[in-house]
Amino acid sequence: MDETKCRRNIISMAAKAEEHGLQFRPHFKTHQSLEVGRWFKEAGVSKITVSSVSMAYYFAEEWDDITIAFPVNILEIDAINALASRIKLSLLVENEESIDYLERNLEQSVSAYLKIDVGSHRTGLNPAHLSRITGLLDKLDTSSQIRFQGFLAHSGHTYQCRSVKEIQKVHAETLAIMAKLSYEYNVRYPDLIISLGDTPSCSLAEDFTVVNEIRPGNFVFYDLVQHQIGSCTISDIAVAMACPVVAIHEDRSEIVVYGGGVHLSKDRIEEEGRTIYGKLVKKARKGWGDLIDGAYVKSVSQEHGIISVLPEDLKNYRIGDSLLILPVHSCMTADLVRSYTTTEGRTIPKM
Amino acid sequence: MDETKCRRNIISMAAKAEEHGLQFRPHFKTHQSLEVGRWFKEAGVSKITVSSVSMAYYFAEEWDDITIAFPVNILEIDAINALASRIKLSLLVENEESIDYLERNLEQSVSAYLKIDVGSHRTGLNPAHLSRITGLLDKLDTSSQIRFQGFLAHSGHTYQCRSVKEIQKVHAETLAIMAKLSYEYNVRYPDLIISLGDTPSCSLAEDFTVVNEIRPGNFVFYDLVQHQIGSCTISDIAVAMACPVVAIHEDRSEIVVYGGGVHLSKDRIEEEGRTIYGKLVKKARKGWGDLIDGAYVKSVSQEHGIISVLPEDLKNYRIGDSLLILPVHSCMTADLVRSYTTTEGRTIPKM
Repeated sequence: MDETKCRRNIISMAAKAEEHGLQFRPHFKTHQSLEVGRWFKEAGVSKITVSSVSMAYYFAEEWDDITIAFPVNILEIDAINALASRIKLSLLVENEESIDYLERNLEQSVSAYLKIDVGSHRTGLNPAHLSRITGLLDKLDTSSQIRFQGFLAHSGHTYQCRSVKEIQKVHAETLAIMAKLSYEYNVRYPDLIISLGDTPSCSLAEDFTVVNEIRPGNFVFYDLVQHQIGSCTISDIAVAMACPVVAIHEDRSEIVVYGGGVHLSKDRIEEEGRTIYGKLVKKARKGWGDLIDGAYVKSVSQEHGIISVLPEDLKNYRIGDSLLILPVHSCMTADLVRSYTTTEGRTIPKM
Repeated sequence: MDETKCRRNIISMAAKAEEHGLQFRPHFKTHQSLEVGRWFKEAGVSKITVSSVSMAYYFAEEWDDITIAFPVNILEIDAINALASRIKLSLLVENEESIDYLERNLEQSVSAYLKIDVGSHRTGLNPAHLSRITGLLDKLDTSSQIRFQGFLAHSGHTYQCRSVKEIQKVHAETLAIMAKLSYEYNVRYPDLIISLGDTPSCSLAEDFTVVNEIRPGNFVFYDLVQHQIGSCTISDIAVAMACPVVAIHEDRSEIVVYGGGVHLSKDRIEEEGRTIYGKLVKKARKGWGDLIDGAYVKSVSQEHGIISVLPEDLKNYRIGDSLLILPVHSCMTADLVRSYTTTEGRTIPKM
């Protein structure tokens, strides 16, 4: 991990949130580290987002206002009650069954957001179905333990975008949907929170009308997907996987590293007809510099990574070298590691 | 985990090895569990294969003859020396640099196999380049610490096969390659071991002429990939991921479960124009039964799994149900879990 880049990404997003008058509630599922979390505290952050109850537990050591931005899993009610007794806990709901179950089984009061589907069609309520939304709100309003906070959305379909313009179009559509909901319900709920989430929109958009809160997560590290869709530059990417060279095959101009799907994950990007599982960067005195031309991970199995390099560059590699690979999807790669090593050589523990 | 199925898979492969007079050195990278390892001991297994030095460490608690079937990572020399002082350790080599490094830095004697590329083009020596192979053997013969054991291959390209016939063709080619090497070198090395590895060949082939040892791993659990290529039946698959239902979307006939890429991995199969990340099975009194028609994981993100079910079946699902999903690639899925729960409710720890 390049701590300097990572802290720069944090400060930059915090500044953007402040500039737009937004509550910054970063998603910590990407780094999953109390120590990295402290860098956010230094940047003025006091509220966070996570994606599971166990992650909320981990961060509750140092954070007292946590949103679990995943539809509530009622099987975890005991852990939810225990958490809610310690911190201000916010949950995501999108159906009657969960609300009814929570109302019957909560022993502590919690906050709740209604999840709105703004077009990614993964989770959430159809924003056009106002009668259904109103029905759920009526139910929430009669609840003794659940306090409705607002509408939460995640424009996950920005990840399918391949240009800044496309991302801005998706973001504009999301804003329009949320503005309509805000208009519909802000008399009933004067303190209604509109919360948006994805890193591409938060990195690139400049219009946050009607939005109160942003919850990006990936930006702390960024990665090749974010670079491909235009959210970041290569030099913003704050993590790389160090993979030892175990074999070199001149005839195929390939290098085999100890670094496979259980290290990098199997997320991939398509680029100029190639499937890419990671790209090599040049080693620098501390950390890394630019991409190495034509050097990319072309396939991964459980522990093997196969790297294609330009034939004329093959002479630069030796058995036992440790290569630095920028990940395709840093959230998935970081989830697989047990700790980070900074470019200064320091170990940073994680969940 | 269905312990009965798992033990049946173990006994069945052990019996097949015995029937063909083969040394059975199963690969433990799939289950990564000392307890599951003991079931192999009960089936008469005394030697194992792993894919990393850390896995060898874990299993060295209970096993004293371990092959690390991954090209030696010379950066781990200290751990290799420590291991080699405790157990009979076998390493994989395929280049001069690694052999030279080992010879200079080994403090304990180890066994070594030359890795042969039988067509998967991931790692290994080209079997047609006999002068290069002989050169490496000459080097190994002068080594004071490395004892050459034989030739090791992994027909990883059987995973691209889509029928039993195709697998048998690949296996026959592998046998032909290994037979040629055996013929070439068995006078020089009367105790030469020919070791083969992949689950598809070991499950389906009946001809093991010239082979001394098999190292399949995946068969302990099997999975949807193995089923697709014909190595197993659905009822042989011994693990399923239990995923709680958190949302149901009638309009799309979709169910959202807490079970994403960090649980199932992102391995997938293509089938009838669909991309599939897992398939649902019917719950049984203990464990599970048949596949549920038309019910499959259509996409996964970090924590979300989106399951498509037949519209007429949607009424069978409730928020808070725990669904059982057969994994696409059990090695990757098992790598992500911290322990197993048997269908009898027992917890089995893993690495």
